[in-house]
Amino acid sequence: MSSSWGEKIRISIFGGSHTQAIGVNIEGLPPGEPVDWEEILVQMSRRAPGQDKTATTRKEADTPRVLCGLYEGVTTGAPLCAVIENTNQRPKDYSQLKVLPRPGHADYTAAVKYAGHNDVRGGGHFSGRLTAPLVFAGALARQLLARRGVTVGAHVLHIAGCERDDPPFDPVSLDSALLDRLSREYFPVRDSGVKEAMRAAIERARLSQNSAGGLVECAVLGMPVGAGEPMFGGAENRIASLVFGVPAVKGLEFGAGFGVGDMLGSQSNDPMYVDEGGRVRTRTNNAGGIAGGITNGMPVIFRAALKPTPSISREQDTVDLRTMQNAKLTVTGRHDPCIVPRAAAALEAAACVAALDLLACSGLL
Amino acid sequence: MSSSWGEKIRISIFGGSHTQAIGVNIEGLPPGEPVDWEEILVQMSRRAPGQDKTATTRKEADTPRVLCGLYEGVTTGAPLCAVIENTNQRPKDYSQLKVLPRPGHADYTAAVKYAGHNDVRGGGHFSGRLTAPLVFAGALARQLLARRGVTVGAHVLHIAGCERDDPPFDPVSLDSALLDRLSREYFPVRDSGVKEAMRAAIERARLSQNSAGGLVECAVLGMPVGAGEPMFGGAENRIASLVFGVPAVKGLEFGAGFGVGDMLGSQSNDPMYVDEGGRVRTRTNNAGGIAGGITNGMPVIFRAALKPTPSISREQDTVDLRTMQNAKLTVTGRHDPCIVPRAAAALEAAACVAALDLLACSGLL
Amino acid sequence: MSSSWGEKIRISIFGGSHTQAIGVNIEGLPPGEPVDWEEILVQMSRRAPGQDKTATTRKEADTPRVLCGLYEGVTTGAPLCAVIENTNQRPKDYSQLKVLPRPGHADYTAAVKYAGHNDVRGGGHFSGRLTAPLVFAGALARQLLARRGVTVGAHVLHIAGCERDDPPFDPVSLDSALLDRLSREYFPVRDSGVKEAMRAAIERARLSQNSAGGLVECAVLGMPVGAGEPMFGGAENRIASLVFGVPAVKGLEFGAGFGVGDMLGSQSNDPMYVDEGGRVRTRTNNAGGIAGGITNGMPVIFRAALKPTPSISREQDTVDLRTMQNAKLTVTGRHDPCIVPRAAAALEAAACVAALDLLACSGLL
Amino acid sequence: MSSSWGEKIRISIFGGSHTQAIGVNIEGLPPGEPVDWEEILVQMSRRAPGQDKTATTRKEADTPRVLCGLYEGVTTGAPLCAVIENTNQRPKDYSQLKVLPRPGHADYTAAVKYAGHNDVRGGGHFSGRLTAPLVFAGALARQLLARRGVTVGAHVLHIAGCERDDPPFDPVSLDSALLDRLSREYFPVRDSGVKEAMRAAIERARLSQNSAGGLVECAVLGMPVGAGEPMFGGAENRIASLVFGVPAVKGLEFGAGFGVGDMLGSQSNDPMYVDEGGRVRTRTNNAGGIAGGITNGMPVIFRAALKPTPSISREQDTVDLRTMQNAKLTVTGRHDPCIVPRAAAALEAAACVAALDLLACSGLL
Repeated sequence: MSSSWGEKIRISIFGGSHTQAIGVNIEGLPPGEPVDWEEILVQMSRRAPGQDKTATTRKEADTPRVLCGLYEGVTTGAPLCAVIENTNQRPKDYSQLKVLPRPGHADYTAAVKYAGHNDVRGGGHFSGRLTAPLVFAGALARQLLARRGVTVGAHVLHIAGCERDDPPFDPVSLDSALLDRLSREYFPVRDSGVKEAMRAAIERARLSQNSAGGLVECAVLGMPVGAGEPMFGGAENRIASLVFGVPAVKGLEFGAGFGVGDMLGSQSNDPMYVDEGGRVRTRTNNAGGIAGGITNGMPVIFRAALKPTPSISREQDTVDLRTMQNAKLTVTGRHDPCIVPRAAAALEAAACVAALDLLACSGLL
Repeated sequence: MSSSWGEKIRISIFGGSHTQAIGVNIEGLPPGEPVDWEEILVQMSRRAPGQDKTATTRKEADTPRVLCGLYEGVTTGAPLCAVIENTNQRPKDYSQLKVLPRPGHADYTAAVKYAGHNDVRGGGHFSGRLTAPLVFAGALARQLLARRGVTVGAHVLHIAGCERDDPPFDPVSLDSALLDRLSREYFPVRDSGVKEAMRAAIERARLSQNSAGGLVECAVLGMPVGAGEPMFGGAENRIASLVFGVPAVKGLEFGAGFGVGDMLGSQSNDPMYVDEGGRVRTRTNNAGGIAGGITNGMPVIFRAALKPTPSISREQDTVDLRTMQNAKLTVTGRHDPCIVPRAAAALEAAACVAALDLLACSGLL
Repeated sequence: MSSSWGEKIRISIFGGSHTQAIGVNIEGLPPGEPVDWEEILVQMSRRAPGQDKTATTRKEADTPRVLCGLYEGVTTGAPLCAVIENTNQRPKDYSQLKVLPRPGHADYTAAVKYAGHNDVRGGGHFSGRLTAPLVFAGALARQLLARRGVTVGAHVLHIAGCERDDPPFDPVSLDSALLDRLSREYFPVRDSGVKEAMRAAIERARLSQNSAGGLVECAVLGMPVGAGEPMFGGAENRIASLVFGVPAVKGLEFGAGFGVGDMLGSQSNDPMYVDEGGRVRTRTNNAGGIAGGITNGMPVIFRAALKPTPSISREQDTVDLRTMQNAKLTVTGRHDPCIVPRAAAALEAAACVAALDLLACSGLL
Repeated sequence: MSSSWGEKIRISIFGGSHTQAIGVNIEGLPPGEPVDWEEILVQMSRRAPGQDKTATTRKEADTPRVLCGLYEGVTTGAPLCAVIENTNQRPKDYSQLKVLPRPGHADYTAAVKYAGHNDVRGGGHFSGRLTAPLVFAGALARQLLARRGVTVGAHVLHIAGCERDDPPFDPVSLDSALLDRLSREYFPVRDSGVKEAMRAAIERARLSQNSAGGLVECAVLGMPVGAGEPMFGGAENRIASLVFGVPAVKGLEFGAGFGVGDMLGSQSNDPMYVDEGGRVRTRTNNAGGIAGGITNGMPVIFRAALKPTPSISREQDTVDLRTMQNAKLTVTGRHDPCIVPRAAAALEAAACVAALDLLACSGLL
């Protein structure tokens, strides 16, 4: 089903931007796992809007309420459903969106697909708000992973219009302390100087009634050898099928990624060796920790490209679906000039959920 | 399951490089669809090795035998299973691969995952040979798509070491005749002059006992509005979960792809208009024909990055899994210096299968 | 996943007897379907306890709250999640159940499976209370079915200890008005005189600190020809995989059911004819409306056997899981002496959900 | 998909009565499992026709050819596909079946569902011949189960028209030696005297151009505690969704089955105790080894009702699908007067596949 993902650990996300509530049902969690609520809230706040000028000024508490699946703070093994109330619903007339679809949004495709019955308020089920339950699920998965020695972190690699990039991860000697630090920040970057430049670029976009795209790099450290399956069950396939569910993602690459298109075999093959601990390692990590779809014990590294928020307040060309004539549209309301910093939290969450399911499917949990 | 893919049209691929046979079982095909066998063979031959110096010199007939699912050349609606015998199995000692895994291959990860029981001959179930049944399934899906006005074609966009790229598709005014032409060629490019340069680059790699990576661009033309679902059921998610099953793919992007990371919203949003035929179109196609996971009627366009074949005859660093000491390995045998031209056929096939399943899932078949 | 069911229309049930709330997430509903809330509440009240002496005296409002998926009372096509608060939770010490599992319950098997982390309060996720969200989903499905001419109804065929059975459905000339009437009653029977006898038998069981099993017969009228698939996707398989999820069901049969074991082919084959309306019908309906797994246009009829509630207040033999010694147990609290009347509503709901998914899977919705 | 079954161990069955071949693709098998080919053939021969007068006189070798998934007789962990050629295809005119559907068969429902494109020869994909690949898969699963202490066996409990039943299993003290013996016989019964009476009843049916239904009882011994999941993932649900795929099954019950409808709680609850080995056991086994959907360590026992073969040579009432008029039909050809003895092998196979998948899903393999 489209809003569900996972084979052994399965998340089902429900709700829309302006429905009474949104949430996620998580099936397949192992029993006996304690949940640290403070850590959950850390992750929820990383994704929540209203934190600084790079994001929308809407404020949402985004405190999940766990309806079931925990007993005295420990997983029972039964489905765990968490719900987040949509408290900040401003009454507003959204009927225009049924007539004048916003370019870059799903308004038009959804109108056709659902014959006009889709909930257009705030993007409905297509809203970026739906990453909140994903982040909840990821925050929970992260705790199970941590107990098994797996750490997940991401940073903002690039912001459109910013001349400086955050330095990419060293794919071979990546430190879990770095990932830990990044995974607790709102706008995670390795180099704080770069962050200021990125903020400035975002502010420039905002002031010009525009929005900015960007790139996020994410790493999963500590995966054992053997997670993932051949062909369509590979770690890349599974991560991709989840990551492309984060709104705005238009590209995904693993390890050397698109760089392999410029490589010779002698460059892209990662030389193997036995390290001092007797473990098999590779001297480079162009594979991004995945060979033949299966994790090889090196860091799993991927990068995602996120398009700029389509909601910009400039006038845009659209169509009038009633008259089927060309029309103009000016989107109003509060919008993120750049969702990339918040998307880093969502992409980490996706990585956590994918890693946990990969471990479970391969009998490594 | 890892070697199966699809929700309504489901392919299950089986076999290994040196098993008795390989094949695919296809479930969910609608009844009453005639199959043009010549067209099937055209596609099989595009993927088959031994066609020119850019590929391995092994020769394989690769003629599928349909065991069931067709009656008098027409689909019955029951599962269609096709088998390709592995006729060209040279007796050879593959036991070295259990001890000295090839860098860049799945030898090591598979050895750990399957506790040494995996079939290492020629890469076993991880072999690129498994794209043959995928191409068969794609060739069949292509015929159903054609009847519904959907055309699929790809071209080699880039080869490592080649200074010239084939000109990318025009994502807005793409011609089905071009896709038709490309989809019948062994080494499909738009500009035949570029092909010569690409061949030369591949030949340089071969002569230096190396291999070359590259990029393929693929287009699906004629998809109706409304295929694909929100979140994890989006057209991007579904295509990605299939495409990353084609060996060597390390990156995938849709529409403007990684380029969106450098865009502002005013650049990436595709302006909408009503064309002369009364259809909603966009003036650019940065979305790659997919908005909110759902096709919008514009061409679906994706690019995949393929790493160079890891089998190169240069000496490489590996490990000895018996002694757990560092070791050297020289891979012998016939290998493609560049699988990118053949991979174009496999990626088209993946696109065909994905497009057909997307249509079926959305009730548009 | 174990608590989810369905291929195109998918229900995911969550919660336990004493969690904060229980509920169901329904994916795949077609858009544009209005929901009659009164009809939903009619079904919820049929399953709810506390209606007469045959059921437990607990009172639960069981009013679902729809979090999302409806807009102005009409389905949007996005997931529909409904939640029922568990308001009537008496604080109680359930720790005994971890030590002394109740015979006939899942206490022991769950304790082993979940290593003691399962929520034992009131049976946790194994509680019959979980049929409430199933009934909600069924009530919703029923409305979609009704619009397509499909009616579902059930009656209590037999109660243990009662000498009279309710007369079985006429499987050939079954009337939708009868099913409509039954599907709105709390203790549905065709012959009200039989109901009195059944009530008396239940009361005898209650007075003797016992409980009573029984049989329910359910019919689905108006299914078009062609729903269901061959082999494991047959209508029987799909209904069975759902119906055995209703607690207490230990047997299921379709049409002539176990009676076919005593039949000759000349008896069990249903003679075919063309009726006045030009439709193909059968003169008998031993097939229960399903041939080769596919509906044939005749009424789909099944019977389910329900075991007596295992919670009886008599002393029973159990084991002490701490000491691993034999032990005695007396279950206290309010319990249904017979869940069969309420189970009829749950089985109808299961039939509605199964019928809707069968139609959707076969492209008949 | 309809012809596939299983979550971790997945079988996909393909082919039809008169296609070139039939077979099964098995995914998810653990690596390193040796396969005893003689044992496979024992099971194939139990299902094969032509063994005695109770079955059709067609002779089929039914020797599967394993295309892949085994290396030197041991599972590799990759998909295992086995194919059985259809060697005994008599050229015959089957076109009548498109016009005059056989009562009790899927001819009519398939004609509607597949718009006349289904392969009608010998029943096509609905043929009982499709149990051959199921038996192959079961024979393979049986060997994995045996290594884990799980034994499966069935016997013919009842034949229509026979006054004597084979004595039912003792559900509490069932002996694996008995199951072993039964699981190697063509017409398995506990009491050979009963078999003679059953054979006589079948012969009477045959001589009167008729066929006979019957009942089969099957047991799975040695399942550990904890296999199966709550709600729709219960052992009963999983077994049922597979068993109803065996043609002719119209009823299924577990443990006391339909008998629970006549029980009081004090009768149906299985008293628990600790046996001499310190294991939790029950003194009765009305639960059929399954509580709350989860195996409890007692024998899993189910009974299936099989309708008589619909192909009888008496004249029957049907319809002419061209003229939509009533018509008469006389089925010719060789047919089993009673498939129940052969169905015992198929039901055992189903039980083996279900048990293996249940173990795999619950992490007990």
